[in-house]
Amino acid sequence: MNTNSTIPYPGGVLAASLTPMKPDLSIDHDRLISHVNWLLSNGCDAIAYMGTTGEANSFSIDERIRALDALAAAGIPMNALIVGNGCCAFPDTLRLTRHALEHGVAGVLLLPPFYYKGVSDEGVLASCDTVIQKLGDDRLQVYLYHFPYMSQVPFSDAVIEKLIDRYPNTIAGIKDSSGDWDHISHLIASFPSLRVFAGTERYLLDTLRAGGAGCISASVNVTAPLAAEVKRTFQEDQGLALQDSLSTARLAIQSRPMIPALKGVMARLTNDSDWDSIRPPLTPLPAAEIDSLLNELSIVRTYLAK
Amino acid sequence: MNTNSTIPYPGGVLAASLTPMKPDLSIDHDRLISHVNWLLSNGCDAIAYMGTTGEANSFSIDERIRALDALAAAGIPMNALIVGNGCCAFPDTLRLTRHALEHGVAGVLLLPPFYYKGVSDEGVLASCDTVIQKLGDDRLQVYLYHFPYMSQVPFSDAVIEKLIDRYPNTIAGIKDSSGDWDHISHLIASFPSLRVFAGTERYLLDTLRAGGAGCISASVNVTAPLAAEVKRTFQEDQGLALQDSLSTARLAIQSRPMIPALKGVMARLTNDSDWDSIRPPLTPLPAAEIDSLLNELSIVRTYLAK
Repeated sequence: MNTNSTIPYPGGVLAASLTPMKPDLSIDHDRLISHVNWLLSNGCDAIAYMGTTGEANSFSIDERIRALDALAAAGIPMNALIVGNGCCAFPDTLRLTRHALEHGVAGVLLLPPFYYKGVSDEGVLASCDTVIQKLGDDRLQVYLYHFPYMSQVPFSDAVIEKLIDRYPNTIAGIKDSSGDWDHISHLIASFPSLRVFAGTERYLLDTLRAGGAGCISASVNVTAPLAAEVKRTFQEDQGLALQDSLSTARLAIQSRPMIPALKGVMARLTNDSDWDSIRPPLTPLPAAEIDSLLNELSIVRTYLAK
Repeated sequence: MNTNSTIPYPGGVLAASLTPMKPDLSIDHDRLISHVNWLLSNGCDAIAYMGTTGEANSFSIDERIRALDALAAAGIPMNALIVGNGCCAFPDTLRLTRHALEHGVAGVLLLPPFYYKGVSDEGVLASCDTVIQKLGDDRLQVYLYHFPYMSQVPFSDAVIEKLIDRYPNTIAGIKDSSGDWDHISHLIASFPSLRVFAGTERYLLDTLRAGGAGCISASVNVTAPLAAEVKRTFQEDQGLALQDSLSTARLAIQSRPMIPALKGVMARLTNDSDWDSIRPPLTPLPAAEIDSLLNELSIVRTYLAK
């Protein structure tokens, strides 16, 4: 792992890892292990396992647990994982969390319950209280998952403040997937006890310079080597130029439906069409879309080929 | 059951039943059985079990299955149930559906996967294809659950048309929770093979007069007796006046967070504060809010007292 002594661990470059599947849409444990190993050997300091990019909510709780067991059995360092655990039903969140803690993971990424809309701050707090109190485990390190577009249930400043106040040794950080630099920098400035991760490597350098923890990003599945270069040089002028290239790659990827785009790119880079397997409601991108994306990703391909 | 020969069954007045819990937030099977029995004896032709109002997505799959087993064991007629089955993960949807079909339920209420936003029609179709084809059971009767505000993933006309075309003997109906009469009447006129249910009893009379199947509604948990009167008289002038009262009651309920409001009303009407138990991210309403709501519901209370 390319840990950087100036950045607390887990920090730096984290991929929200893709979940490879077989054509029958079951999780392909062998390819998952290979991919996570590749990420950890090619620029990632740690992995966010079973987040939005990993299609977490498209799998049953049993499937999520068995795949983590497979990673552990294969010797993936469990303290290099932050495990997505936030479900609509708290018994599911508790099952995933207990299991992940038994494996000794670095932390969990807590999405709020996302079915009901127009939920009050009181309701978001009640969900966190329920999980943390019913769990009652000092090992728990929670990274709040703020993704207002996808969950439609934000972590407001008021909720974050109350959670830190109630559970100062448990609330470890936040992933800010708002895509809004103003919000990311606001969180870094406002909550010094939190490790703030940008949800996109577009703001990796800015986040590190502002004192944030790094990024947890979908597109790091293919940009990890370049992102690691940005992290290595973030305090230097060279870092700015590298960040420009990294941002160009990210913007090319996010201009398409990201998860199918990333799976399509992986299928091409590894010459393995099984990578196109994706669970509904997501659907594979047409080959022509992947062609044009790969053209736009030439800078990343140089790094991938290193 | 108050079936009406002019309305095909299941049709007429359906409550999306509330799920009573114990103070520890586990499902209270005994009170669930009592409540469903009360609904079926007081105006409901059938029940939509484990929909949005039933807090379906706040329970694990095991909890949902065990509660249905309890209803069956108590002698609740299974052909009076439409069972919510749509999950984000298709293996969960398949488990719930197989279990419900073994019990001989009248149908399932299929919510599309609701985590990802900006999903294409192709993706919604792919989810339905996956469930229907992997199930491969001729007994399956699907009611599509169109609830754009809550799921953020609508069933577009194009998707409905393709589904009817592909599975004419399986796609039985739709619950339209858009709250928009123009959309409800459009569905009735456009898809004559579908049993169209308004997601609110506010449009019960209009739906029945237009040839729709009836309503499946949260607030019918407390308005069932009055809603049954509207159904009985929908072709008469008297029906219009009753519908006005019913609409007034519905509007009073929906001006509050509906599920906590309904649970609060049930707690008062049954003098059982356990009814206030609700899973996060929903939270109970303050007592003063329930007081004012009950004042606005005087017409319903008259019917409840009958």
